[in-house]
Amino acid sequence: MAEWPRPASGSESPRYAGPATFFRLPLRRTGLDIALFGVPFDGATTLRPGARLGPRALREASTLIRPRHGRSGLAPFELCQVADAGDAPVRPFDVAATLAEVEGFVAGLCAGGTAPLMAGGDHLMSLPVLRGLRRAGAAPSPPWGMVHLDAHSDTAGSFLGARFTHGTPFRHAVEEGLLAPARVVQIGLRGGSYGPDDLAWAREAGITLLDMPAVERMGVAGVVAEARRVIGTGPCWVSLDLDVLDPAFAPGTGTPEWGGLTPRELLGILDGLYGAQVVGGDVVELSPPQDHAGITALAGATLLFELLCLIAAARAG
Amino acid sequence: MAEWPRPASGSESPRYAGPATFFRLPLRRTGLDIALFGVPFDGATTLRPGARLGPRALREASTLIRPRHGRSGLAPFELCQVADAGDAPVRPFDVAATLAEVEGFVAGLCAGGTAPLMAGGDHLMSLPVLRGLRRAGAAPSPPWGMVHLDAHSDTAGSFLGARFTHGTPFRHAVEEGLLAPARVVQIGLRGGSYGPDDLAWAREAGITLLDMPAVERMGVAGVVAEARRVIGTGPCWVSLDLDVLDPAFAPGTGTPEWGGLTPRELLGILDGLYGAQVVGGDVVELSPPQDHAGITALAGATLLFELLCLIAAARAG
Amino acid sequence: MAEWPRPASGSESPRYAGPATFFRLPLRRTGLDIALFGVPFDGATTLRPGARLGPRALREASTLIRPRHGRSGLAPFELCQVADAGDAPVRPFDVAATLAEVEGFVAGLCAGGTAPLMAGGDHLMSLPVLRGLRRAGAAPSPPWGMVHLDAHSDTAGSFLGARFTHGTPFRHAVEEGLLAPARVVQIGLRGGSYGPDDLAWAREAGITLLDMPAVERMGVAGVVAEARRVIGTGPCWVSLDLDVLDPAFAPGTGTPEWGGLTPRELLGILDGLYGAQVVGGDVVELSPPQDHAGITALAGATLLFELLCLIAAARAG
Amino acid sequence: MAEWPRPASGSESPRYAGPATFFRLPLRRTGLDIALFGVPFDGATTLRPGARLGPRALREASTLIRPRHGRSGLAPFELCQVADAGDAPVRPFDVAATLAEVEGFVAGLCAGGTAPLMAGGDHLMSLPVLRGLRRAGAAPSPPWGMVHLDAHSDTAGSFLGARFTHGTPFRHAVEEGLLAPARVVQIGLRGGSYGPDDLAWAREAGITLLDMPAVERMGVAGVVAEARRVIGTGPCWVSLDLDVLDPAFAPGTGTPEWGGLTPRELLGILDGLYGAQVVGGDVVELSPPQDHAGITALAGATLLFELLCLIAAARAG
Amino acid sequence: MAEWPRPASGSESPRYAGPATFFRLPLRRTGLDIALFGVPFDGATTLRPGARLGPRALREASTLIRPRHGRSGLAPFELCQVADAGDAPVRPFDVAATLAEVEGFVAGLCAGGTAPLMAGGDHLMSLPVLRGLRRAGAAPSPPWGMVHLDAHSDTAGSFLGARFTHGTPFRHAVEEGLLAPARVVQIGLRGGSYGPDDLAWAREAGITLLDMPAVERMGVAGVVAEARRVIGTGPCWVSLDLDVLDPAFAPGTGTPEWGGLTPRELLGILDGLYGAQVVGGDVVELSPPQDHAGITALAGATLLFELLCLIAAARAG
Amino acid sequence: MAEWPRPASGSESPRYAGPATFFRLPLRRTGLDIALFGVPFDGATTLRPGARLGPRALREASTLIRPRHGRSGLAPFELCQVADAGDAPVRPFDVAATLAEVEGFVAGLCAGGTAPLMAGGDHLMSLPVLRGLRRAGAAPSPPWGMVHLDAHSDTAGSFLGARFTHGTPFRHAVEEGLLAPARVVQIGLRGGSYGPDDLAWAREAGITLLDMPAVERMGVAGVVAEARRVIGTGPCWVSLDLDVLDPAFAPGTGTPEWGGLTPRELLGILDGLYGAQVVGGDVVELSPPQDHAGITALAGATLLFELLCLIAAARAG
Repeated sequence: MAEWPRPASGSESPRYAGPATFFRLPLRRTGLDIALFGVPFDGATTLRPGARLGPRALREASTLIRPRHGRSGLAPFELCQVADAGDAPVRPFDVAATLAEVEGFVAGLCAGGTAPLMAGGDHLMSLPVLRGLRRAGAAPSPPWGMVHLDAHSDTAGSFLGARFTHGTPFRHAVEEGLLAPARVVQIGLRGGSYGPDDLAWAREAGITLLDMPAVERMGVAGVVAEARRVIGTGPCWVSLDLDVLDPAFAPGTGTPEWGGLTPRELLGILDGLYGAQVVGGDVVELSPPQDHAGITALAGATLLFELLCLIAAARAG
Repeated sequence: MAEWPRPASGSESPRYAGPATFFRLPLRRTGLDIALFGVPFDGATTLRPGARLGPRALREASTLIRPRHGRSGLAPFELCQVADAGDAPVRPFDVAATLAEVEGFVAGLCAGGTAPLMAGGDHLMSLPVLRGLRRAGAAPSPPWGMVHLDAHSDTAGSFLGARFTHGTPFRHAVEEGLLAPARVVQIGLRGGSYGPDDLAWAREAGITLLDMPAVERMGVAGVVAEARRVIGTGPCWVSLDLDVLDPAFAPGTGTPEWGGLTPRELLGILDGLYGAQVVGGDVVELSPPQDHAGITALAGATLLFELLCLIAAARAG
Repeated sequence: MAEWPRPASGSESPRYAGPATFFRLPLRRTGLDIALFGVPFDGATTLRPGARLGPRALREASTLIRPRHGRSGLAPFELCQVADAGDAPVRPFDVAATLAEVEGFVAGLCAGGTAPLMAGGDHLMSLPVLRGLRRAGAAPSPPWGMVHLDAHSDTAGSFLGARFTHGTPFRHAVEEGLLAPARVVQIGLRGGSYGPDDLAWAREAGITLLDMPAVERMGVAGVVAEARRVIGTGPCWVSLDLDVLDPAFAPGTGTPEWGGLTPRELLGILDGLYGAQVVGGDVVELSPPQDHAGITALAGATLLFELLCLIAAARAG
Repeated sequence: MAEWPRPASGSESPRYAGPATFFRLPLRRTGLDIALFGVPFDGATTLRPGARLGPRALREASTLIRPRHGRSGLAPFELCQVADAGDAPVRPFDVAATLAEVEGFVAGLCAGGTAPLMAGGDHLMSLPVLRGLRRAGAAPSPPWGMVHLDAHSDTAGSFLGARFTHGTPFRHAVEEGLLAPARVVQIGLRGGSYGPDDLAWAREAGITLLDMPAVERMGVAGVVAEARRVIGTGPCWVSLDLDVLDPAFAPGTGTPEWGGLTPRELLGILDGLYGAQVVGGDVVELSPPQDHAGITALAGATLLFELLCLIAAARAG
Repeated sequence: MAEWPRPASGSESPRYAGPATFFRLPLRRTGLDIALFGVPFDGATTLRPGARLGPRALREASTLIRPRHGRSGLAPFELCQVADAGDAPVRPFDVAATLAEVEGFVAGLCAGGTAPLMAGGDHLMSLPVLRGLRRAGAAPSPPWGMVHLDAHSDTAGSFLGARFTHGTPFRHAVEEGLLAPARVVQIGLRGGSYGPDDLAWAREAGITLLDMPAVERMGVAGVVAEARRVIGTGPCWVSLDLDVLDPAFAPGTGTPEWGGLTPRELLGILDGLYGAQVVGGDVVELSPPQDHAGITALAGATLLFELLCLIAAARAG
Repeated sequence: MAEWPRPASGSESPRYAGPATFFRLPLRRTGLDIALFGVPFDGATTLRPGARLGPRALREASTLIRPRHGRSGLAPFELCQVADAGDAPVRPFDVAATLAEVEGFVAGLCAGGTAPLMAGGDHLMSLPVLRGLRRAGAAPSPPWGMVHLDAHSDTAGSFLGARFTHGTPFRHAVEEGLLAPARVVQIGLRGGSYGPDDLAWAREAGITLLDMPAVERMGVAGVVAEARRVIGTGPCWVSLDLDVLDPAFAPGTGTPEWGGLTPRELLGILDGLYGAQVVGGDVVELSPPQDHAGITALAGATLLFELLCLIAAARAG
């Protein structure tokens, strides 16, 4: 039986030493409670590309994170067997083929009940991860609820003639029965629109939309309460697009929108999800070419660790 | 009769395609309700130069903005005929000649009742725009009120021996009868001073000064109420120096001051101005050489769009 | 009849003023001798993306270029009617559809005998431009010769399962009868390979390959002589991938290879092409997110002007 | 008797003119009320180096600061004789020798009652400054209280086998009788830990720990009240690690932690310390290689000025 | 009598320690053989501003330079008394007043026979330095010869309506009898022109123009021979615009031109000037906002040291 | 028996996919012909720190390198068993302890005859690698010859009171009998000196010094001939400090010196070493914080591959 995977200790070798894996964990794909993996694909971005380089940058920044969660004291690597499962296969010039490859990768990875935690890549990549998790058949059956932190709803019908872009994954996920719209809450929406009906589909589907004015009005506590009400006690996914943050906190992303969340608000919302049945999650849209001083990568790595703790806590009960 | 000008559609060609004009609008100077134009001049800056490169960077960033306002649903390009009127002529080595050139340009541009929306350039350039608007003779007669968002009062008497610098425009504007000081409110002032009397002239003239401690005390709602009280129901200008924002949100500016407004506070204040009789405005002091990841340019472009919506709403009644 | 298009004069308004078009030319698509246009697409890049943002950056940098060629005294805008024809339509998520769109755009643009000068975008985009030029039917009939300046041969068969990538355009062009391999010379090749046969197809097709050791051995004069011998007196294309330059001179590109040409060598080679029947050309693979201080954009804009002069000279006889 | 030292006037020569000293003050080491000096050493950093370059960058940025404090009107250079005392001697390859050198330098500098204000350098350098101040014998006798603003407690026992690192200075300071732990308050702590007991020593020693959740709960006013209660009316030190700020506000530091203080919160806390008996202070961990647009250097210089005003006010009574 | 000024020793304190003066020299204006000073002015730039920040950046980078010249073994600080004389006074908004101020400053500085070595600032600033040196009356009488290393001739008549810009200083200098055109050689000219007659004035005045094709043809040895022939044995000035270098070696400048000199070619040319009667010189057009990794500042500081050695050698006979 | 280690194929997964190891090789320490490893230490740097972050950046950039050498066709991963052996243990605050740790690591790694190829780290780290290789006892006995490519001789006696810094490794190596000075050649030396005798020790020891003027004079072929003459046919080391390159080609290093080698010169010199008995080597002084666009990291990774090919060719005979 394989050894319990442990991150390289920062008190034995400096955190900047050695090849960068997620949280300095060993590389492994089997016997895991939670698998961290990357999807280095940005072929579905509508604006500035670069998210294909996200997984590497997240690995690098994640080596700065210490293994015990500060605010809760949680030690995810002691609660669960966690490793870096490498990157899903992608086909850089072919969106459809990539959707299939990633789905297959996740189906295999999670077949034994492993929870997926994906490092993007663009946001379309959440779709094949959800598909793969269903196909793996080991998680609670979909449709799942979702806490979706993002500047954009990502429920458009098509964009520039394409139905599968990083602006459309969750319409597909709802239509394919992966998500239960009544149990989906989207937090942090903002920015202009192309027309008056951009969010009509989401509203009519029954998704709960909390745009930034709503967040301001409700405060973190109010947002948490509403999010918990919406997702209920069933299994849910947490999808975190880094552009939910204000561009000053996350310059390294492809489609920034002004006036977003602060780090502390976002941490507060995530803290409010302890107790929810989180079956997996993703942190997407880190685009290193637009980052500076690595602050967006640090944000992404911190949030990946926060999601890891949520999943570990959910699995540990 | 000229066609109603429309921005190139982001759903037909990607927002990064084609030459960058303001909001992907056509180039045109006549028959407009609102004219967007640049003033590529920074010969009046006291510290770090670069604002002459601001208009280009604002055009580039503005192509990221979608045509419909998110929080209000307002569609300014449907309400009003808006176009990119190009840049005012400048004389890079001659402040006085530039003041005259810009004034003449604006006088011509606005002669038929077009509202000016200026993209700076340094803050001295607000002065010839106000002069030109008066000379055009089509807007409500001055003196006008003003909502002035800035880290600095810009009402100094002189600096390093010069009376016309980016630290002095509004003293001239008051003295020339362009602004009614009792209807001028300055929001976001902060930073050190050279002496105890730096703001004495502004106070004695009757300008309302809301420095950052006042903003903190009053909150956004309080600031809005006070601003509305000061400007009243008469015609007013909105002048927005990007250094009103904290340097983390607007690094790309020449005279940053620590501890400024956040994007959401600034948006909240601007939202509070709907209903005011806004006759024009400006966004100034974007200095691209100090920017990174384009976050200041994005801030400037977003704010230019916010001001456009305010002016369009005021014209549409 | 339309006015002869002239660049905005740098002695009347500063070169940083006004919206950025190629060389500050007017926007126009008809009645032209030479049409400058962009192809904002990078969906066929194998490594670091960003070339979709190239056309904008080339426009911006091109405004620094003065209208008369320094070494030759040539004045292309007086010899020929030249304008900025905007960007070809692209389909960001669909390589095949983009190939068709760009081909159609060029076919229309060049139907009256206009020579195309393309600003990329990734190198696959040379293929639909060549196809479009053939379809336009106004240029000398293909197959054409080609001077191809590049670190890579771009004649691979497929990559990661795809036949149309930025590593494959010229194999297609040869196979489709657009290029005559015996009249194609590739200059500046270097870098490692995946296997011993990477260049076998090109060699067997009869393309002349001048890798960097050959360039070193032959010197600029030798390279020019060989290139002129290969292309002969028939019509030819000039395709310039910025990665032909050493990364220090062109950091802003997706697939840099160490040990490339210097600017002066490249200018020397281009100077050697005067007298050749250049029917069009392209400058590709500028990736602004990897650039710094705009030096790669300046390189690209300078080279676009050099190609413009070559084409103008060829048309002027 | 030496002339009263004055900063070069920004109204006589631009603030960017002349060699950069702290606040454009003269260089001098004697006859001072307050001595500003640098410690260009980063040999005790555990993660990203660069703080050795901090003093130069702080000098450069400090020239942007105007001489009169904005919120209070305080004029420190009129209240006290202040100068740039240069940098302490350091031994780049030898932590122990550097501790001795810096202690000796401070002991000499402060022998006549001059208050030290140190610009780091890494945080270990606070230790020899405190030692030197005690050895100078002119300040109120230790143990002193301390307001410590930092993401980290810096009271570890050892790290990677070393007892003197930038993670350990204040355990030594307490153990050596320089600080009275009951009068020490640490504000802004956050981030993960290596084990459950990372802060146990500090807690047991009696240090008051206000981590970020506590700060959020208490608000600025609550933090101020608690800090004042802890330090009491006796002499105290203010030690400010720039990583107490969120990384978006202070990217240029070696060990960033997500979710920190905002500039306005930090200014609010410092404003609350007027009236305390501040005998000296430090601003440390500016790492220019990770900074961008100089925003962290501006933060550091602003905060150095804030501490200067606190010390000047305390000395002036 | 004042002590012989010595640079702070790099073997006693690290080169990054202490406030940055030129070459870590003391600040002093009297009793000098050679005075290093800055002119922080960029009000005469036609394109990208920033050179006003050049003197500070040159001071910072100059601290990296060791005190003994590598290729010759020359020790300028032992041969001559050299110090940092601070910055000349400037009037940022007034070109004419700045010309007068700088002239007066230099006249005073050099009255006792001190040789000036100026760190720009933009290239117009060479003019008042030459004027001031004449007015000082202690150097050999003008007209002087000049070795002028630059991408541009800087002998235009006017630009955008102004006669005094950074494109015109040397026409004025010739017309005012400061320079003898027959003894002036300009090396490195390149880039496009506005019209066929851009260089006509210089040619007719009798200036020797060596553009880049000439440099390529002649080689370094040929350039040196021609330069020595032109300047002869009389007194001469060396003016070095950093844009003479290719942009990859000097990105941090306002008006870059592609295809310039390499560092080694430039050093070779300067080495060829030993034995000439160099009475002073300048290094201009460093624009830090466009620099990266400080490579242009390092170039400028290295070249300032090279010029210092040339002047020191000339004075030492 | 362990599988022959192969790099992940770039034709199966994009080169930017997966965790970054050297050349996408597996992690392994045993059964190797050549071991690539990092030494993440910069505690011996005299100027700008950052080289501790070098190994990670070299791994990242090395994934861009294709597995077959371009100019020679050599396939090192087919000739030899090569893997990423991780990083040597370091003690960030203790130079002496780090020297011991690295020596021990290399002694173990190479005990079975594995050749070491080290990625720095600062240049002092070459010393413990040489010591470790001797202690391993499997390579030809020292003293070895060395081809040392560097701007600096690194044979100083001490610096700022320390005998072990990155300016001193090779004096120790000679004194300890690791290197035979008569078989050591240093290429690319340049820059100023502290005194007339800086290189006296090296010269007296019998080291062959080829400074940049010598390189210019001799040309690449002359340098190669001299280097081969010096090292002879015995075993030799190749040590490559990235600052041997001109700063434009390698900005990301701690102690840049102007006027260095070009990439093509350096490749030419290395090509000249085929046939020499190269027993190991190192690429040091990559300092990522000073790099931009990764060009220095790309240089370092390319050079690491070049050295790998040299070692593989030597082992393969």
